[in-house]
Amino acid sequence: MQDNASAGSVPRPALGVYPLPGLPEVRPGDDLPALLAEALVAAGLVLRDDDVLVVAQKAVSKAEGSRVALAEVKPTPAAVRLAGEYGRDARLVELVLRESRRVVRMQAGLMICETRHGFICANAGVDSSNAGAAEMAVLLPEDPDRSAGLIRAGLHGLTGAAPGVIVADTFGRPWRAGLTQVALGVAGVAPLADYAGEQDDTGRPLRATVVAVADELAGAAGLVCGKLDRVPAALVRGYLPPGRAGKGAAPRGSSGRDLLRDRLHDLFR
Amino acid sequence: MQDNASAGSVPRPALGVYPLPGLPEVRPGDDLPALLAEALVAAGLVLRDDDVLVVAQKAVSKAEGSRVALAEVKPTPAAVRLAGEYGRDARLVELVLRESRRVVRMQAGLMICETRHGFICANAGVDSSNAGAAEMAVLLPEDPDRSAGLIRAGLHGLTGAAPGVIVADTFGRPWRAGLTQVALGVAGVAPLADYAGEQDDTGRPLRATVVAVADELAGAAGLVCGKLDRVPAALVRGYLPPGRAGKGAAPRGSSGRDLLRDRLHDLFR
Repeated sequence: MQDNASAGSVPRPALGVYPLPGLPEVRPGDDLPALLAEALVAAGLVLRDDDVLVVAQKAVSKAEGSRVALAEVKPTPAAVRLAGEYGRDARLVELVLRESRRVVRMQAGLMICETRHGFICANAGVDSSNAGAAEMAVLLPEDPDRSAGLIRAGLHGLTGAAPGVIVADTFGRPWRAGLTQVALGVAGVAPLADYAGEQDDTGRPLRATVVAVADELAGAAGLVCGKLDRVPAALVRGYLPPGRAGKGAAPRGSSGRDLLRDRLHDLFR
Repeated sequence: MQDNASAGSVPRPALGVYPLPGLPEVRPGDDLPALLAEALVAAGLVLRDDDVLVVAQKAVSKAEGSRVALAEVKPTPAAVRLAGEYGRDARLVELVLRESRRVVRMQAGLMICETRHGFICANAGVDSSNAGAAEMAVLLPEDPDRSAGLIRAGLHGLTGAAPGVIVADTFGRPWRAGLTQVALGVAGVAPLADYAGEQDDTGRPLRATVVAVADELAGAAGLVCGKLDRVPAALVRGYLPPGRAGKGAAPRGSSGRDLLRDRLHDLFR
């Protein structure tokens, strides 16, 4: 075993991720910032401006009442036909179509859709699992940036600190197996970190290198949230945006939409 | 500001990410495990079996000598023609074509290729920036799983601990802007976490939910590595694979290739 001068006193990590367990099942109309503030206290954490709070889309959607009782959905004939073809619930297929701007691909019952917001994901983000009640489907938040902004403002009012907030969901992706957590909406944190114009260590100017840090932050939170542990939020502490030495102010108008590749530069639409 | 029972003693995060700065510029033939072990000591860290060490592909490729002097590359006529069309260096285009199984898309000089390994990424992973010397191009490691396994074995010999190891690179992706760090090769850590068969909190069986945890781990490391800080490695401590309560043994035969969607289930090849 290697010697270690500071054995016994493990140093603090540069970046720390704290799950916020113990949040109650979120219900429509719940004050999500208040629930989060309580969970932070319970976790022994004092919120800071340079923290980033990652909140699961599903908790946000539930609090905002963005869910639908399947019994109230009347599927169109098109939805009934598609559902029959693929052995799926016609009411769910109907909801997926309603939430979609277009169906990007469809195969073996899997629908990859572009949502009203512009996200491309399975089933347009409509989820019938874990909805808090049988026969309910949870939809994506109507405006995830606004959701993130409201959580940030609410936390600011309650704690005095205005952290970055990311509303996150797990998406699949082409070519690579498995889901990863990504950012749908952001507030108070720049979703993209731009290294353009800096130089590498041979003095050569770096080509524009733009990192989707909001997605990496969402993914880091996903590592402690799991799927079942009722941990719909995690705090990331210690993330330093490049070139800002921890000041961390996001450019005005930062949006989860910045993470959507524009049509002109997307070779895979 | 909110009251906080433990103000003054900030709790330890569940997941911590430690950058490993101070690694020297890696050169062909360098003993990367030894350099990493030294960097761990310098960071005050005693390596543990349940740690995950994320190492930048470029450092691995340099240590393995997986780089090419552009002066020695003789471009084929096809490469010369493509390069002329798009205003690129014909020798680089030649290397990209050599590293590719196929060109998936090409537009405005951007080549999205499927590498010999099966990764789909820009320029087949060939990188002429930051190569440690002018006019050199760095290629992806020949076998990133083997690279990860050798780093793991080397660290085991030096420290007595056999952590998970991920060889990572930053890739773009369709539909979403920006790059994120992903896992190319893995050793000692399961790249996918499978939640299939468990139940959600309403007792309903979860549909198969497979999370690409190795990509989320690589992304978390990316948040502290930056592009310029000469931090080619980071340690992630505290990641618990689901259902294994921290035992953390990866299934035999785990491979970065598990993160490549098989052709049958990829709607976007």
